[in-house]
Amino acid sequence: MPGTPSLAQQLGAKQREISVAEFFERNRQILGFDNPLRAALTTVKEAVDNALDACEEARVLPEIQVEIAKEGTERLRIAVEDNGPGIVKKQIPNVFARLLYGSRFHANRQSRGQQGIGISAAVLYAALTTARPARIRSKVAEEEAAHVAELLIDTQHNQPRIVSEELELWDRPQGTRVELVLKARYTRGRQSPFDYLRNTAIVNPHARIVLIEPDGTRITWDRVSTEVPPVPKEIPPHPHGLELGELAYRLKASKFTSLRETLTKDFAGVTPRALREVLALGKFTGKESPEEVHGEELERLLRVLHEVPLLPPNTEALSPIGPLLIKRGLRNVLGEIRPDFFAPPVSRPPKVRGGNPFLVEVGLVYGGGLPADQPMQLLRFANRVPLLFQQGACAITTAVSNLDWRRYGLDQKGGNGLPVGPCLLLVHLASTKVPFTSEAKEAVAEDPEIDKELTLALQGAARHLRTHLSRRSRRDLASEKFIIIQRILPQLAEKASRLAGKPVPDLTPVITKIMDVVALEATSGPGPSPSESSVTVELTNYTPRARVLELFVEMPPEDLASATLEPLPEGTDAELGRAWWTLEKLAPSARSRLTLRFPKSCEVELNDLDWFIAGVDEAHLLGAESLPGDWEVRLPRAIIEAAEGASAESSRDEAEVDYDGEEAHAALEDE
Amino acid sequence: MPGTPSLAQQLGAKQREISVAEFFERNRQILGFDNPLRAALTTVKEAVDNALDACEEARVLPEIQVEIAKEGTERLRIAVEDNGPGIVKKQIPNVFARLLYGSRFHANRQSRGQQGIGISAAVLYAALTTARPARIRSKVAEEEAAHVAELLIDTQHNQPRIVSEELELWDRPQGTRVELVLKARYTRGRQSPFDYLRNTAIVNPHARIVLIEPDGTRITWDRVSTEVPPVPKEIPPHPHGLELGELAYRLKASKFTSLRETLTKDFAGVTPRALREVLALGKFTGKESPEEVHGEELERLLRVLHEVPLLPPNTEALSPIGPLLIKRGLRNVLGEIRPDFFAPPVSRPPKVRGGNPFLVEVGLVYGGGLPADQPMQLLRFANRVPLLFQQGACAITTAVSNLDWRRYGLDQKGGNGLPVGPCLLLVHLASTKVPFTSEAKEAVAEDPEIDKELTLALQGAARHLRTHLSRRSRRDLASEKFIIIQRILPQLAEKASRLAGKPVPDLTPVITKIMDVVALEATSGPGPSPSESSVTVELTNYTPRARVLELFVEMPPEDLASATLEPLPEGTDAELGRAWWTLEKLAPSARSRLTLRFPKSCEVELNDLDWFIAGVDEAHLLGAESLPGDWEVRLPRAIIEAAEGASAESSRDEAEVDYDGEEAHAALEDE
Repeated sequence: MPGTPSLAQQLGAKQREISVAEFFERNRQILGFDNPLRAALTTVKEAVDNALDACEEARVLPEIQVEIAKEGTERLRIAVEDNGPGIVKKQIPNVFARLLYGSRFHANRQSRGQQGIGISAAVLYAALTTARPARIRSKVAEEEAAHVAELLIDTQHNQPRIVSEELELWDRPQGTRVELVLKARYTRGRQSPFDYLRNTAIVNPHARIVLIEPDGTRITWDRVSTEVPPVPKEIPPHPHGLELGELAYRLKASKFTSLRETLTKDFAGVTPRALREVLALGKFTGKESPEEVHGEELERLLRVLHEVPLLPPNTEALSPIGPLLIKRGLRNVLGEIRPDFFAPPVSRPPKVRGGNPFLVEVGLVYGGGLPADQPMQLLRFANRVPLLFQQGACAITTAVSNLDWRRYGLDQKGGNGLPVGPCLLLVHLASTKVPFTSEAKEAVAEDPEIDKELTLALQGAARHLRTHLSRRSRRDLASEKFIIIQRILPQLAEKASRLAGKPVPDLTPVITKIMDVVALEATSGPGPSPSESSVTVELTNYTPRARVLELFVEMPPEDLASATLEPLPEGTDAELGRAWWTLEKLAPSARSRLTLRFPKSCEVELNDLDWFIAGVDEAHLLGAESLPGDWEVRLPRAIIEAAEGASAESSRDEAEVDYDGEEAHAALEDE
Repeated sequence: MPGTPSLAQQLGAKQREISVAEFFERNRQILGFDNPLRAALTTVKEAVDNALDACEEARVLPEIQVEIAKEGTERLRIAVEDNGPGIVKKQIPNVFARLLYGSRFHANRQSRGQQGIGISAAVLYAALTTARPARIRSKVAEEEAAHVAELLIDTQHNQPRIVSEELELWDRPQGTRVELVLKARYTRGRQSPFDYLRNTAIVNPHARIVLIEPDGTRITWDRVSTEVPPVPKEIPPHPHGLELGELAYRLKASKFTSLRETLTKDFAGVTPRALREVLALGKFTGKESPEEVHGEELERLLRVLHEVPLLPPNTEALSPIGPLLIKRGLRNVLGEIRPDFFAPPVSRPPKVRGGNPFLVEVGLVYGGGLPADQPMQLLRFANRVPLLFQQGACAITTAVSNLDWRRYGLDQKGGNGLPVGPCLLLVHLASTKVPFTSEAKEAVAEDPEIDKELTLALQGAARHLRTHLSRRSRRDLASEKFIIIQRILPQLAEKASRLAGKPVPDLTPVITKIMDVVALEATSGPGPSPSESSVTVELTNYTPRARVLELFVEMPPEDLASATLEPLPEGTDAELGRAWWTLEKLAPSARSRLTLRFPKSCEVELNDLDWFIAGVDEAHLLGAESLPGDWEVRLPRAIIEAAEGASAESSRDEAEVDYDGEEAHAALEDE
């Protein structure tokens, strides 16, 4: 059609492709480069996430150094160096100077980086703001020298542009160093690289991280675990998470020739039994060519695959931190805060969401130097990476806000929102596929399955908090009463006796009558040798009856493993860190004593030890708890009949007793 | 190196490119396809945004029909049809089945879609969940038949796959219809397609939008303006928004041979004067070849460009809604709510942020059917598109929450967060580049410049609210007093007179003494002809002095334009919608009356008219306000000396008086 082009033609002529690099150059806020402060954080974050992933894959204990230096006004030179396996020469340009290029996107397992965008985005931003290329140095173990490359991104084609390349000697066996000059600003504080690295150290207790700030300050977060977390296994896709289009694509791409084979080998969870059921229900022979299943047949296949019970996906694709390391990580990094209470961390069993395994972990810390009049500090993590921005838009925050924390002893206006109190909460979501709300990976999208697990985990931790708070307030109350009685009664007695001209009577029976408790007092002190510390426990029977008591202690399993206990306990559970004793019968006002000795390296604190007592009702305990209902212990011997003529049978010797609530309680109280 | 590959080699072998389509298939929550409910919304939104953009570009009044029908379990068929210019055959596959492809990404002007992702993402999602191709029908005005294409996306290569193509007759002169079958769910309610279309109608009062819901319900939002908004102009980049890398790229890409030419022609705002200054300060001759400016010279050039004052960018790249249409749009769509008060909408002048013009508009509505015990309803818009998700992560919400609404008469806990009250707030951000936090375009990223403008606009609207609320409470109080006096005094007088056997005295002087106000009472009613409505205003002088009063009215300018005023006003300001009268001297208890007649089509309500009076102190006004300090009016004639022997000079005739506060007040009170 000659002549003037029509409007539709004019509009059509303007249509063109947009390179992904151009897209993100123009929308850099999506990647976390909104402003100079955040640019510094995002750059450090992307480089360190990559370094940690690489070290884990190579099963190396990570040693990461982050150097931040000023380079003129509003510019920083940021260098991140690791001891990972290095990157082969050929891949250096693609890994660092090409968006949407990576090794972990297609791997169905938990990893920090998944998108193949992060570090290239930092390179893009650096070039955009300073026109300076990124300098990469990388050495792989089997080569003598390191490869050094200076890189830019050709944004119009999203391809690396190599500015220079050379070989350099490097006194490291292996590793990678990324160096960028970019428009950025550094301050220590909330949402800063410091904050990010500190939180990273909490959830990566096997890493040693060093930060050198622009003024030369050097901060080191040392590792508290020398175990490299197991490399999460890659798993095939699970049919429960498939959509129709994906299933069609996978069948077409299969290298197997029969439906039977492709279903069992290309997909997870399809056991022989499940296969039989799928074929029968879907009216397939199993001999169909996978690529010829389409249309109505395809829809039937998917429907059946969603209906038939399959094996859940292998959860070895996940790498949880675990309760022990959460506690250690928190203690290591929050040392200066000295919280009163570390709730036993909750690590939920893996669940599946749309075919992708995920799990939730929660750690909770209370008191000490945490501010009592501020909202709870919430540390969010996804696949061991701290999430510092977009707290308000994150499903983790929603789950925390929707919990009624008032029920667990914290202030919360209207039972909604972040509660107020000296509380720090760590929430970790691990998944083969974390549904982030944007490429900046700062917030988790809402999802009912994830929300459910988050809520269960939070409730678990919150219940421990409630127990601690109510225990503390009861203990405070009882202790107060105890102290008053021990101090005032003797003075009253003395005065009264003097006035009456009579001798001062023995007050123990009176105190006993008023208090009516079994009191446990634990004190810590130096051990018999300089390399040891000790905890002494005194148990006094301030009740009017003689008592046969059973004492239980729970502590971190590794502490129990290295402890010396006197007297020897009647039994221990190494895995759970529990030990128990049946004490000699304690007459009224009598006292029993135990000593626990630990190597100094354990750094055992009184807070680490939880004491439980069976043989007396909870209302009559001071300084210890009743044995919780969920403890299953093989009782060392029966509760012997109580002092005052109770007729308990001794038939319970060595019986497996599940102390679950009333029954157990009744048994113990039945003296 | 033969033998087993090293770890670095193994890792390197896993590196590969990720197609942008694969990326978004796996991360579809980023694009707004988290779940079936949201998928329906996002699909409608992307299609309608495109339709509106296309109609505006073609200067056509948009007629948009959205049909949503059930198609089996958990599936919807969504069709969106428009009367836009259509799409030429060659471009149909790319526009609908290729991510990052479009015409508006590179255009530096305000538009709804900018990313070239939206509708293709919907096509991708539909294929993923139902394996069904998108069906596109498009007809351009100069062709006889419509092109129909069925399309899928080859995700591995991000390329369209044409399933079928044909020609079809279509009884439309031009237009486009997109039809998708996808896993989705429809309910009317918050964050639904209904909600989105309703809000779209508010800010696009020139569009006619029809929604057909799955149960057959048909909802129509009719247009209230027949003016197509002007097509925003494309503008060159402004140097104040450039980073070093961008400047280098633009210089290299310039088709001009001298720095002088490229600076004035490739960039906005560089006037001849500014050019001279840039060259002088930067020590350039102007004859340098643009592509040879690099290194230190390049940095110097950027620094100078950032320092030298330039012309701000042309704001014709923006398309604000404007106060009048904001009010009309709100009134049209919120008809059923019947708010008591429409604050005069605020449309801020354009500002520049990093070289990109932007502006903020705010509309505020109060009372009527809005719930009084709920947080304010906040309607967020960017480039005339409603933002329905991620409210918590949006800079607009932050600005609203950070305003202390208690100062403006609303409840707000702690002076932070969304205030509580029967209030609906519309906030519109228009920009050539809206910094969205993600591709789903649901939230605006934080930015200090935008925040400042948002705050100023919000304060502007909030001040009107405060005036309204305090006026209302004062009026309520005074009216109450007035009513009581008018009712009770005569009864008292009558009773007293009867008891005393005396005649009932004239009470007007007493009422006047007690009230001491000038009262304005406006009532609306039918006009003298059936096509007219009228507003009658009575002004009574219940003060003990004779008064020369000036009366001012403000109303929507188009209402004033079509009104008949009796008596004729002494002056009018057509642009601002103002008229004024100097009334005959009013003796105590005397009354003056005016009539305003409007064509019925104006739908004038009493709320639309604001009354102001000069000649009496604010404390003595009832039903009207003192003339605001920011009115600059050419006084028709002087304030004539007041009744009781005041000696005001008549030298103020025709004087330009700026009624700003005390001076004016003093002048008026100086009777």
